[in-house]
Amino acid sequence: MSDARRRLFRIFVRPVLSLVARIFYDPRFLQGRFFEQSLGGWIWVVRGMWSQKLLGMNRHVPWPVDSRNIVLSAANLEFHPDDLNNFQTFGCYFQNRDARIRLGRGTYIAPNVGLITANHDPLDPTRHLPGQDITIGAGCWIGMNSVILPGVELGPRTTVGAGSVVTRSFPSGNCIIAGVPARVIRNLESATSEQIIEVEELE
Amino acid sequence: MSDARRRLFRIFVRPVLSLVARIFYDPRFLQGRFFEQSLGGWIWVVRGMWSQKLLGMNRHVPWPVDSRNIVLSAANLEFHPDDLNNFQTFGCYFQNRDARIRLGRGTYIAPNVGLITANHDPLDPTRHLPGQDITIGAGCWIGMNSVILPGVELGPRTTVGAGSVVTRSFPSGNCIIAGVPARVIRNLESATSEQIIEVEELE
Amino acid sequence: MSDARRRLFRIFVRPVLSLVARIFYDPRFLQGRFFEQSLGGWIWVVRGMWSQKLLGMNRHVPWPVDSRNIVLSAANLEFHPDDLNNFQTFGCYFQNRDARIRLGRGTYIAPNVGLITANHDPLDPTRHLPGQDITIGAGCWIGMNSVILPGVELGPRTTVGAGSVVTRSFPSGNCIIAGVPARVIRNLESATSEQIIEVEELE
Repeated sequence: MSDARRRLFRIFVRPVLSLVARIFYDPRFLQGRFFEQSLGGWIWVVRGMWSQKLLGMNRHVPWPVDSRNIVLSAANLEFHPDDLNNFQTFGCYFQNRDARIRLGRGTYIAPNVGLITANHDPLDPTRHLPGQDITIGAGCWIGMNSVILPGVELGPRTTVGAGSVVTRSFPSGNCIIAGVPARVIRNLESATSEQIIEVEELE
Repeated sequence: MSDARRRLFRIFVRPVLSLVARIFYDPRFLQGRFFEQSLGGWIWVVRGMWSQKLLGMNRHVPWPVDSRNIVLSAANLEFHPDDLNNFQTFGCYFQNRDARIRLGRGTYIAPNVGLITANHDPLDPTRHLPGQDITIGAGCWIGMNSVILPGVELGPRTTVGAGSVVTRSFPSGNCIIAGVPARVIRNLESATSEQIIEVEELE
Repeated sequence: MSDARRRLFRIFVRPVLSLVARIFYDPRFLQGRFFEQSLGGWIWVVRGMWSQKLLGMNRHVPWPVDSRNIVLSAANLEFHPDDLNNFQTFGCYFQNRDARIRLGRGTYIAPNVGLITANHDPLDPTRHLPGQDITIGAGCWIGMNSVILPGVELGPRTTVGAGSVVTRSFPSGNCIIAGVPARVIRNLESATSEQIIEVEELE
């Protein structure tokens, strides 16, 4: 987008869009880097008004959520508006009707990731076992096609490898976990980015 | 929804919707708990008429299927209308062109699950190997991001852990299986719900 | 579709559709088996004009991509137009902003597959590690819910089992790999289709 069009957007389009968006969304979520530094947030707002408010997918959620994801409970989800990107890819399931999901600031969630706070009862799958909170620290990265199970706590700067199933907590953080079930495959304590690249190339 | 609006829906909206729905869907699938005890089924019908009949995703399927899933063959799928919920989340692939998928009553299928009755031929991926039926018993739960491979039979009350790949049958049921490939991690024969919760917390 | 309607489509509808499609898509991708031998390609074109050009999902991509997938960079993706089917299911993530993805001719990609050329930096997930090309040979098959990691090269006729995470290269091809992480579970060198079926039934 050219500078002139960008200025046009800022002066004329954004104020109108902002007014309309506040009818459908909680203003607390209409701020942060995606609304001030880029247009991304406003595109999500327009798309969300169509899919959430008109088609009814994630209708109850007071922030933009792409229709290819499911958020069960807005009240049971904690995150910073700068991390709204985590609701805009696809295939993610925030299953938090019975317990809270807390996402630390600057945490990235890849597509097709499940955060599951309550299992079905294996003895009677029509009901759920009691929910258990999921807490993800700041600066984590949850790889594509991973699932985080009830009660899991991941400390800050935890990387979850693609396709992992995280069945227990890793509260100290600063590590890479991977596998089914997930185990620590590397501690980050004293590592530099260059060393991590080297290791990944060796493997 | 208030009682008054609910009554209004029952008297005026539902009969009209029911008549229209019968143009597009087989009436056998427009009954059961989602149509009698809740409005859920009617919401799926309205959404499905848009995505299936207008946009053409799963157009051939005579029951409501959310556009984020793929059902290859309606004729090769057996399930009870009370379990229509299994077609309303996202990411599920019912690959049953060459063989049947049977879902036992009260079985729950999580998002991003594949039920694959025919593999591509590794020697010539343009063609498929012969299809093999998949049979899931009653009261099972298939966890998120799992895949069930051709020929698999799961007995009643089998729980498949998230992220599992089920490569062989577990016909006796009453167990929790998990992993890549899936193995039995617990038998349910003599377990109570409380014991299962305990075990899950220990692991 | 009857022969008469097919002829009608060929004489009247296709030329008009072809003209309109060329406004939105690169003609190089509007050819091959899906446009000449079937109507499939034209259905993808109509759907794509709605989801890509109007709703803006994968807007920048000059070939039809179903809205349930994400292609980050069209310039960094190499494939044959006869394999356009690989962009029409759901849940696939072609993460190739920083490096190239090459798909060999006649390769099949199942739903919910990730091809990831650049990891987030575990020490600072706001930035990515340098991208590394992914190269998939001809006649491969990538099973549902699998993820291919940066730098991976798969030789021709590699089958990747469902739910696999491919962390390293298998450049010689002619094998079935599976698991988290993926390992060779069978070489195809001297196998016949019948032998493969037998082995799969035994397992």
